[in-house]
Amino acid sequence: MNDGPRRRETSDATTAKPPMRDALVAAAFQLFLERGYEQTTIDDIVTLAGVGRRSFFRYFPSKEDVVFPDHERCLADMRAFLDDTPDADEDPVQRVCDAARLVLRMYAENPTFSVQRYRLTKEVPGLRAYELSVVRRYERALAEYLRGRLAARRDGTLRAEVVAAAVVAAHNNGLRSWLRSDAQGDATAAVDHALGYVRATFGDSHESPRGGPRAKECDDVVVVVSRRDAPLWRVVQEIESTLGRD
Amino acid sequence: MNDGPRRRETSDATTAKPPMRDALVAAAFQLFLERGYEQTTIDDIVTLAGVGRRSFFRYFPSKEDVVFPDHERCLADMRAFLDDTPDADEDPVQRVCDAARLVLRMYAENPTFSVQRYRLTKEVPGLRAYELSVVRRYERALAEYLRGRLAARRDGTLRAEVVAAAVVAAHNNGLRSWLRSDAQGDATAAVDHALGYVRATFGDSHESPRGGPRAKECDDVVVVVSRRDAPLWRVVQEIESTLGRD
Repeated sequence: MNDGPRRRETSDATTAKPPMRDALVAAAFQLFLERGYEQTTIDDIVTLAGVGRRSFFRYFPSKEDVVFPDHERCLADMRAFLDDTPDADEDPVQRVCDAARLVLRMYAENPTFSVQRYRLTKEVPGLRAYELSVVRRYERALAEYLRGRLAARRDGTLRAEVVAAAVVAAHNNGLRSWLRSDAQGDATAAVDHALGYVRATFGDSHESPRGGPRAKECDDVVVVVSRRDAPLWRVVQEIESTLGRD
Repeated sequence: MNDGPRRRETSDATTAKPPMRDALVAAAFQLFLERGYEQTTIDDIVTLAGVGRRSFFRYFPSKEDVVFPDHERCLADMRAFLDDTPDADEDPVQRVCDAARLVLRMYAENPTFSVQRYRLTKEVPGLRAYELSVVRRYERALAEYLRGRLAARRDGTLRAEVVAAAVVAAHNNGLRSWLRSDAQGDATAAVDHALGYVRATFGDSHESPRGGPRAKECDDVVVVVSRRDAPLWRVVQEIESTLGRD
């Protein structure tokens, strides 16, 4: 995916001194927590990290970017994951839900850092705006993939944009509940549950593109979707077999 | 709603000279189109409008705000509309769809201005960021209303956030297609169609909170939602009556 210099070298556990990029992030967060974000300058960060100003700008275009050091990598990973969809029959909604889980994984890799950043972002309007723009880029990546997969369907673009927005909202609902718990809860379970709702609402099992009746089983609800001109006996047959009755 | 000084006085057609706020917006857009957004200063705007700097800041906190002069009023209108929900039985999804239409109405009030702003926003990253933050505020207003209405339901908060995001995405899909047509198309039809998809997906007719079967008619599709433990005869009766057959 992205093995360039921007990738965090988390695998090299034998290195006593962390790579320069990680050192800059660590120094920045130490200062943001001690002094506040606005009161910390890039000069303060490079001084604490023991590097020059040019090193900072080699890794980060701005002070805001050091707060979100892994989103570019994650966006690249998400696009690669969507480009690599192996099975053309796979439910596209399932695929974008799985793509969204890459973002959760990035947050869950470092819970302490993620919680610190969550608190910082809530306090600094400039960081909230930055985060909104990042979230929008994830949403656009998902929508672009869905537009391609749904191109042949009626209202394909509309569906793509609505589903992408729903996936992002559900993911963030689960992610936020985990961050608000100070990363004490189960991040994966929270996000899986939220994405499960989107999947149940929009997933392929929910509609019948070929016109015949099709039923979806949930825990205690049966949904049957049928064309109006389907013969009644076929609809009843479908319900009976789903309910497991004669 | 909001009858304060920030409200545009569109009703006063007999006034030869437009109010100062409108004059500032008109001057700003004339300069943005002639010179570009970044090359226009607030001093340039007040000089052309023939007013002082302090007058500008009486109406607009920043240069970005003059590009989006009506969103604060529209947000206030939306919150008032949602607060005034007269019928507690009204489908909450329908209500937020209607609330979103207030935004469309604002754009449709002045098609030329809306198209100019759409093009300008696409070109200026700072304005895109501003627009994202405004869109997010609409989404939060809708989600807040839905959280209240769906509080008693399982996953009420999750549903509220997903539905709000879906409504905003659908509204913006319709709005953008109209703006891209240079306001030549039918804005209301485009947004109604997009919101119709959200309504059909999430609206109350799509589920049965009280446990009995309930059917929704579309043009050529019948959706039946039923509890698994509902008697089969009730489900069949519901389908028959919906299909209009014996």
